[in-house]
Amino acid sequence: MIVYKAGDWWRALWHFHTSSVILLLLRRVALVGVYNIAVALVVLRYHAVPIQLGREYFSFLGIMLSLLLVFRTNTAYDRYYEGRRVWGQLVSHCRGLAIELNAILPRDAARSRAYYAALISNFPLALKGHLRNNVRFEQFEATPDIIGRLQAADSPTVCLLAVLQESIEQLRQAQIIDPVHLLAFKPHLLGMMEVNGVCERIKSTPIPFSYTFFIKMFITLFIGIMPFVLLASSGYWMIPITMVGAYIMLGLVMIAEEIEQPFGTDSNDLPITQLAHKIRVSVHDVLNVELPHFKKALAAPPYSVVR
Amino acid sequence: MIVYKAGDWWRALWHFHTSSVILLLLRRVALVGVYNIAVALVVLRYHAVPIQLGREYFSFLGIMLSLLLVFRTNTAYDRYYEGRRVWGQLVSHCRGLAIELNAILPRDAARSRAYYAALISNFPLALKGHLRNNVRFEQFEATPDIIGRLQAADSPTVCLLAVLQESIEQLRQAQIIDPVHLLAFKPHLLGMMEVNGVCERIKSTPIPFSYTFFIKMFITLFIGIMPFVLLASSGYWMIPITMVGAYIMLGLVMIAEEIEQPFGTDSNDLPITQLAHKIRVSVHDVLNVELPHFKKALAAPPYSVVR
Amino acid sequence: MIVYKAGDWWRALWHFHTSSVILLLLRRVALVGVYNIAVALVVLRYHAVPIQLGREYFSFLGIMLSLLLVFRTNTAYDRYYEGRRVWGQLVSHCRGLAIELNAILPRDAARSRAYYAALISNFPLALKGHLRNNVRFEQFEATPDIIGRLQAADSPTVCLLAVLQESIEQLRQAQIIDPVHLLAFKPHLLGMMEVNGVCERIKSTPIPFSYTFFIKMFITLFIGIMPFVLLASSGYWMIPITMVGAYIMLGLVMIAEEIEQPFGTDSNDLPITQLAHKIRVSVHDVLNVELPHFKKALAAPPYSVVR
Amino acid sequence: MIVYKAGDWWRALWHFHTSSVILLLLRRVALVGVYNIAVALVVLRYHAVPIQLGREYFSFLGIMLSLLLVFRTNTAYDRYYEGRRVWGQLVSHCRGLAIELNAILPRDAARSRAYYAALISNFPLALKGHLRNNVRFEQFEATPDIIGRLQAADSPTVCLLAVLQESIEQLRQAQIIDPVHLLAFKPHLLGMMEVNGVCERIKSTPIPFSYTFFIKMFITLFIGIMPFVLLASSGYWMIPITMVGAYIMLGLVMIAEEIEQPFGTDSNDLPITQLAHKIRVSVHDVLNVELPHFKKALAAPPYSVVR
Amino acid sequence: MIVYKAGDWWRALWHFHTSSVILLLLRRVALVGVYNIAVALVVLRYHAVPIQLGREYFSFLGIMLSLLLVFRTNTAYDRYYEGRRVWGQLVSHCRGLAIELNAILPRDAARSRAYYAALISNFPLALKGHLRNNVRFEQFEATPDIIGRLQAADSPTVCLLAVLQESIEQLRQAQIIDPVHLLAFKPHLLGMMEVNGVCERIKSTPIPFSYTFFIKMFITLFIGIMPFVLLASSGYWMIPITMVGAYIMLGLVMIAEEIEQPFGTDSNDLPITQLAHKIRVSVHDVLNVELPHFKKALAAPPYSVVR
Repeated sequence: MIVYKAGDWWRALWHFHTSSVILLLLRRVALVGVYNIAVALVVLRYHAVPIQLGREYFSFLGIMLSLLLVFRTNTAYDRYYEGRRVWGQLVSHCRGLAIELNAILPRDAARSRAYYAALISNFPLALKGHLRNNVRFEQFEATPDIIGRLQAADSPTVCLLAVLQESIEQLRQAQIIDPVHLLAFKPHLLGMMEVNGVCERIKSTPIPFSYTFFIKMFITLFIGIMPFVLLASSGYWMIPITMVGAYIMLGLVMIAEEIEQPFGTDSNDLPITQLAHKIRVSVHDVLNVELPHFKKALAAPPYSVVR
Repeated sequence: MIVYKAGDWWRALWHFHTSSVILLLLRRVALVGVYNIAVALVVLRYHAVPIQLGREYFSFLGIMLSLLLVFRTNTAYDRYYEGRRVWGQLVSHCRGLAIELNAILPRDAARSRAYYAALISNFPLALKGHLRNNVRFEQFEATPDIIGRLQAADSPTVCLLAVLQESIEQLRQAQIIDPVHLLAFKPHLLGMMEVNGVCERIKSTPIPFSYTFFIKMFITLFIGIMPFVLLASSGYWMIPITMVGAYIMLGLVMIAEEIEQPFGTDSNDLPITQLAHKIRVSVHDVLNVELPHFKKALAAPPYSVVR
Repeated sequence: MIVYKAGDWWRALWHFHTSSVILLLLRRVALVGVYNIAVALVVLRYHAVPIQLGREYFSFLGIMLSLLLVFRTNTAYDRYYEGRRVWGQLVSHCRGLAIELNAILPRDAARSRAYYAALISNFPLALKGHLRNNVRFEQFEATPDIIGRLQAADSPTVCLLAVLQESIEQLRQAQIIDPVHLLAFKPHLLGMMEVNGVCERIKSTPIPFSYTFFIKMFITLFIGIMPFVLLASSGYWMIPITMVGAYIMLGLVMIAEEIEQPFGTDSNDLPITQLAHKIRVSVHDVLNVELPHFKKALAAPPYSVVR
Repeated sequence: MIVYKAGDWWRALWHFHTSSVILLLLRRVALVGVYNIAVALVVLRYHAVPIQLGREYFSFLGIMLSLLLVFRTNTAYDRYYEGRRVWGQLVSHCRGLAIELNAILPRDAARSRAYYAALISNFPLALKGHLRNNVRFEQFEATPDIIGRLQAADSPTVCLLAVLQESIEQLRQAQIIDPVHLLAFKPHLLGMMEVNGVCERIKSTPIPFSYTFFIKMFITLFIGIMPFVLLASSGYWMIPITMVGAYIMLGLVMIAEEIEQPFGTDSNDLPITQLAHKIRVSVHDVLNVELPHFKKALAAPPYSVVR
Repeated sequence: MIVYKAGDWWRALWHFHTSSVILLLLRRVALVGVYNIAVALVVLRYHAVPIQLGREYFSFLGIMLSLLLVFRTNTAYDRYYEGRRVWGQLVSHCRGLAIELNAILPRDAARSRAYYAALISNFPLALKGHLRNNVRFEQFEATPDIIGRLQAADSPTVCLLAVLQESIEQLRQAQIIDPVHLLAFKPHLLGMMEVNGVCERIKSTPIPFSYTFFIKMFITLFIGIMPFVLLASSGYWMIPITMVGAYIMLGLVMIAEEIEQPFGTDSNDLPITQLAHKIRVSVHDVLNVELPHFKKALAAPPYSVVR
């Protein structure tokens, strides 16, 4: 994720070159430029094809395309923001579980506290790994048998919740907690399960292929028609301004494609590794369990900050 | 459902031909072409009807139509996404129920565990069958008397929830679970009931007929007017560009119609069969019940992947 | 409600004439035609008023009006869809209540079961009657004293919920249900109350008068200005095309007015009578209470199906 | 609040003059007319300033302004509708509380029933007074010591909820209700608290000043530029049509300002006095407490009905 | 926060100069003016570059940019409004907690009451400090050991909730409260945790850098192209009108940047200090704990009121 200082206009523009997507975009815009030059040469030099496309038609297509691109932008941003929202909820639910356990467990039950702190902290790490197809079991803090169970499980996040629920149920059977406490824990366990489900949904269900395809086809047709329309009014100046138009349209689609998968490692994606470590720090702090300093440091933002 | 690699532009366009809707669309666009040629011949050749329609009028209609098409696209996409969202919730609630039961049932109560794993797993299969008007009772895992009850029921999904509730109530009466556990199960049973209701709603209530009709009438009028407007400025070139415009408008309506019923078996519909099998795998895994390998394999994505 | 087969374009247009709103719309469009002819005669024939209104002005008004009409369409559709959503929730909550009671009541308590099945089934019927200002107490299944209480009550739906709550409380005092069961019933009773509230709100609170008035005034002014703008560019052709424009604008407003009150008996309104009967069938089925066949038949869709 | 019959177009326009905002609007439009005449005289008569402003620029500003006005309209309408939604929830929660109490309190506990009916009924009256900065304690039904406590309190609505909670807690300590009943009451008390909070928020937080200011500045600039653009194409006809445009823009802003504070006593505001009295009638009815007829009559709609 | 009287147009415009952002905006508009003059001199005087850019192209870019700016405005306003909504919920939850405690704690338990009143009141103060990176522990009312614990904690708000939960758990262990009361407290503690999470999310996650950058780049390109387009139709008048256009576009972006971080101390930001003090007054009032007058006075609005 890139964090930036809102007020500074030129510095924001300057960091243009930091994104990896930009090279692909520029290559595509260059391709459009080549096409435009070809059209201009054929039409203007040899007058081979005296085409006249009405402005009103161009305006109509332009408005339709603009609205579709804003639709695309909105849906992509909604997915991004929903991803951020549920990770925020994950922070709250992990803390909430820790706060409940902290109030119930005796002050000096250091082992129980460490056990739960580790168990809760593993959940965001497992979710992060699950979303990036790379669960790193060596990062987890748990007894070898739990690690083994997680590795054998269909889904490590679901398995972690099952282990958590089992140990809470054992607390109840040992009468350390009241049956009512089960209901006090429930919203948090439910919330963690939901966060898991929403993240899986965002990851596995892109915007329907029809729309992706349709918008790309539309832009391709529009860019194909554009030089013929603009040639009449702008002459050779058509070439750079059509490239500017292509830059805008292609840019919007490419940003949308980058944003709508917010759990990757692109520069605009959500800092879920850092959030997972932040949850670990917070949970250990609430449960009063010491966490080694180098683990705390992992919660520091790995952002590239644009000032 | 089609899953695609976002970055590749040309391959995305290439897979154009895989959709079954496209033939109908192309036939309609061809029809528009025939109409345009007829208009061009009559107006240009014989100068029979010297019509001049103002551009500003055309722009006004175009903007209104664009906004309506975006409205149509939004409502269709909302229905699609709501369908996906509730199936995601179904995954979470089935897992949540399994996690609760797993914590309560003794480790060695293999029969009880298998019973609940089967019962919960049947729900998404029944819902899928219900949404596709084709419940396949032979896929269910249950004792013959439950199967019989399901077949006699008004709605198999509601009947399954009733059976589930009954057996949970029996656990309470046998004092295997605390009364408070009823409340821990409640959100999941409530959630499954709601998912069932939302899916039924999406299936049975299309966007009001007035709007479907109105947008189709509007497009028909617009396509009817278009050649007269564009003939003055573009001549015979009007024919292909009007067809491009018709392709855009008809395409948007047809995609919307395909997307807004997300539970069918079109190539853009939701993979609910695979999700139902994925829930079965997950629930059996949590409850520690062995599932035959060929049943696990059904959870693999039946997507046609566009690379 | 009209249910239609999405794919067929011409049949959809054909069913144009089935709506009762259409006659009013056509009469209004004809009125616009008369006005246009008058304008054309005065301006073109006698050159009495050589008015020239700028296109850019017409475009500006057109865009503003289009956006307002889409705003109107959105709010109307939201009300329609919210109405449908809460009736879907009503289905779920009535079933959920039946499922809870079914699990608790002994299999052979036929009388209790019939009592609750009738009581729950009355609620959607009462709500339907309440929304259409025509509660038909003879449709209810209840003892005469409950019917009497309902007839005397300020609101029959609220009174039914009060009766339901009383009898559940009696179950608790008779120790047939655990106190915790009260909380298992609670979400459903709360849900039914909320559905009642939302339906009352949709029925009693239209979109603010200012907006209704403002949009009508805007359309009136716009249609008044339109012929002067289009006369210069289109001549007598202005008459039919202005009528097409008027058809679009008036049509959108009239559909919005029809849709935003979704509980009436217009052809686009929600089939709440059928939904109420469907709930009755489902609740009796879950509680294992026989329902006469002619009552089951009432749940069949009274749609006019457009194929 | 104005209630209207949707279908009648001319009567709706006729009631134009009933609003008090309209005089201010007409005065502002007249001011714009004076400005336009001055511009026309100076530019056309003396040819002093041969200004030519491009249409494309005017279109661009027009679209931007239209979109901003729709944004303004949407946010204002959302606030209006949110206000209506929470008052609907208030109706439901007050009724729900009454239904719970009715089921628990013995049929013949007339005094307790009257006490709670009065207490619950006071809440919407207090909220209404709070929102209109005019709490009328003489309308309340309560013992003098409760009235005194309310008058001394920082917020009468919060104080009423505190009194309600105290007396429910006393019921529990007197073992008239089970501890579990506390949780059955909880959603309603929580809901009433939330309604109070949402209403306070809507009342105290307008749309940010920047946007209000920005849109007013934009309209002022746009109306200032408009005559110069339209003079070239429309001549003196520019004067009336610019006034029509000003009427549209100023009207939208003024309606938004009227709607976004829905708790006042403007003709488009929510009928919260009537809703508060309706809740009183409903609560007394459920708890089976007689309410004097003149108090019932206060629930009748004070609408001016537009037929 | 600026509170204003809605009806007065000129006074609203007059307060233009109160904002600190305005100087930066005017400086940027002046820069655009300098650029325009340079373009006009080069193009008109020396006819060096006979550029002709088509209007239809300009319109297309203008519509796209307008839609993107409205998207930007919407997302910024949503963040602002979400911030306000959760602070409203915070008010409700703090009051709700106080109401629950007030009903349970004996009337004369002055010390317990003061303890809880202080503890709850500290939460909004801590949250405010956390959001402004400046927690002022000397403002808190708590015993030194709690202050020490807060200062050592990773997050003071989370720590406060942990302390609150601990003391509620102690009440339960001392049997002052019933286990069921834990669940009555739960929604409020959950709500406070969520408010904390939402505020942290709004603070730490800006709109993705890609969009911020993209919109700035687009505006820069658009302002760069604008004078060439308008020069042909408007001549030197292009200079002021392009500056008006730049003022609109830059203004929208800058307001969005100011609004989307609603927890700062800008003049349009939320009055969270005042809200925190208002909560303190309300909580002390409910729990019947005397609060010094000077602390009450802090709840008075620090608004600059625009009349």
